[in-house]
Amino acid sequence: MNIKRCEKNPLICPSDVKPSRPDFKVEGVFNCGVARYNDQVILLCRVAESAVGTSEDEVRVPVVVNNNGTDQIDVITFVKSEHPELDFSDSREIHRAGAARGKIVNLTSLSHLRVARSTDGVHFEIAEQPSILPSSEEESWGMEDPRITQIGDVYYINYTSVTPNGPATSLISTRDFEQFTRHGVIFAPENKDVTIFPEKIGGMYMAFNRPVPSAIGGPEMWLAKSPDLIHWGEQKHFCGLSKDSERWDNGRIGGGAVPFLTDKGWVKIYHAADRNNRYCLGAFLLDKDDPSHILARTREPILQPEAEYERNGFFGNVVFTCGCLLEGSDVVIYYGAADDKICRVDIPLQDIFDAMETV
Amino acid sequence: MNIKRCEKNPLICPSDVKPSRPDFKVEGVFNCGVARYNDQVILLCRVAESAVGTSEDEVRVPVVVNNNGTDQIDVITFVKSEHPELDFSDSREIHRAGAARGKIVNLTSLSHLRVARSTDGVHFEIAEQPSILPSSEEESWGMEDPRITQIGDVYYINYTSVTPNGPATSLISTRDFEQFTRHGVIFAPENKDVTIFPEKIGGMYMAFNRPVPSAIGGPEMWLAKSPDLIHWGEQKHFCGLSKDSERWDNGRIGGGAVPFLTDKGWVKIYHAADRNNRYCLGAFLLDKDDPSHILARTREPILQPEAEYERNGFFGNVVFTCGCLLEGSDVVIYYGAADDKICRVDIPLQDIFDAMETV
Repeated sequence: MNIKRCEKNPLICPSDVKPSRPDFKVEGVFNCGVARYNDQVILLCRVAESAVGTSEDEVRVPVVVNNNGTDQIDVITFVKSEHPELDFSDSREIHRAGAARGKIVNLTSLSHLRVARSTDGVHFEIAEQPSILPSSEEESWGMEDPRITQIGDVYYINYTSVTPNGPATSLISTRDFEQFTRHGVIFAPENKDVTIFPEKIGGMYMAFNRPVPSAIGGPEMWLAKSPDLIHWGEQKHFCGLSKDSERWDNGRIGGGAVPFLTDKGWVKIYHAADRNNRYCLGAFLLDKDDPSHILARTREPILQPEAEYERNGFFGNVVFTCGCLLEGSDVVIYYGAADDKICRVDIPLQDIFDAMETV
Repeated sequence: MNIKRCEKNPLICPSDVKPSRPDFKVEGVFNCGVARYNDQVILLCRVAESAVGTSEDEVRVPVVVNNNGTDQIDVITFVKSEHPELDFSDSREIHRAGAARGKIVNLTSLSHLRVARSTDGVHFEIAEQPSILPSSEEESWGMEDPRITQIGDVYYINYTSVTPNGPATSLISTRDFEQFTRHGVIFAPENKDVTIFPEKIGGMYMAFNRPVPSAIGGPEMWLAKSPDLIHWGEQKHFCGLSKDSERWDNGRIGGGAVPFLTDKGWVKIYHAADRNNRYCLGAFLLDKDDPSHILARTREPILQPEAEYERNGFFGNVVFTCGCLLEGSDVVIYYGAADDKICRVDIPLQDIFDAMETV
């Protein structure tokens, strides 16, 4: 497979992004939704910020709160020595301590969404300020991992809306990436990695979603239907984890990029991780008229963390995509590398087809 | 509060229910949906059956499988000594063993739904055979805890559809409790304890649902909207757990009975459990036009496991309702006692109002 990582990788780094306020530090710019808008390539980037002042003894956590009807961002300080009940070892999250990994008590960073624009798909101009800030009602712990589905001239943006009551998925729409309309939570927690098909199929919209049940079952892909993009049902289990202890896809599996239609059927780039949280990408070929039917799939990753910028970062050994574009004969995949940078890789569509096995 | 437990309690016991096949044993008949149909009170009972032959050394587990396009029920046998990795100590479930309570590997029983009919609301005639059997596709581990919402002359039945990929919620409709139409999974796993309001409010149907997120948050109540009862969105967090380590409602909280309208607003009987899985009932009073707004609530349980038949059974110290009827000035609550019997309690509506505190 001719995997052409962009020579300019990483395209966007934390140092390229202006913090949203002086006492914040950009920890990561990654996991971006992708769209074509007029003659531009738009990346809607997840920008994760921490509060300046986090030290060996303290962790400072930004969260959104509502004060007298107005959303504002506050910083909570944890003095580590005062919290023996908490585990601060994960760079991304504060957990309850104990024999088993406990519930997440807070995230260490707060993510918002920010537009970056390009005419060549390689050099991006990044907005000086957040394009969409999290709200206290739906996402007081942040907005993460947006996917963009263009239907007509409306762009539907779904993203993980993180609250203390769980990470859910919410929907926003825009026509110009300047004015945004909120449509609320479309999938109750825990549900992430939603990707919406760009047209109705059999009279209904369809979306992959990745619930994480607690008592029974694992983080696996489901497929839902909707008449209006806002209300979803008719859920069916789509694809589960590998049971093989050696496989790259035995830990979690989720939506990846928005599917695109080819003459062979829908191509769906997805992500999976092993039990050590090493994230790779794979691809499905799905029936044009019934995407619940997998025609073929890649058995080995089409992209895995190998480059230095993929192996090392805020959370290493991660390649994670929220969107791609078909340009000529290449699939152009924008992806988050090590949870802190945005990169690009071009892979010939035919090479992906050639790597697939019929199911 | 004048809590009038029915003298005939328990109204229905496992010994009253004919097993669906000779090699099965009815372990429980409980958690029934409730409806008025013509001059009858209908209970749609959850009937949980185990496979005969379970012994100290063996656990036999019934599951639904699909063989050549036909659903059939198979029995899987676990020889305990051959599975040191499993924990058989819970009467309801087989877990992965370990320091923390692991994922559920199988349920010990398989539940189906069965109609019971009465003209006086006390003496019930129970169908000889299952009314609705689980399907291999959506509920190979069973159908549990139905709630019935009557809208016009259609009865909408939502229930927990349990699969190896998690417990989800599905919808079935009927006009006569003889012919049933399936509408598929309406809430992805893990989501239980759904109760649908019996009319549109502000132009939309509404339902409580109780997702159980894995990484962040607890088993708490959310409120969703739908244009058609099949597709749901606009989810909002409704009510969380008590943080008080001594309270009866600090472990889990969920839907209970279908809400009913009074001149003060919607009355919603719900259930909650403490961290020892002791289940009780409480009540909310909700704004007529905006049920997300809690006007008042009972702070102490309106029903708690006190009678011998509530304290002892398949899983003791449980009172759990899926439906109630307003009869004159009384709320008639049908409830599962100790996860194996169906009981009835009548409580004056005014007494419930009197026990409420304004929120």
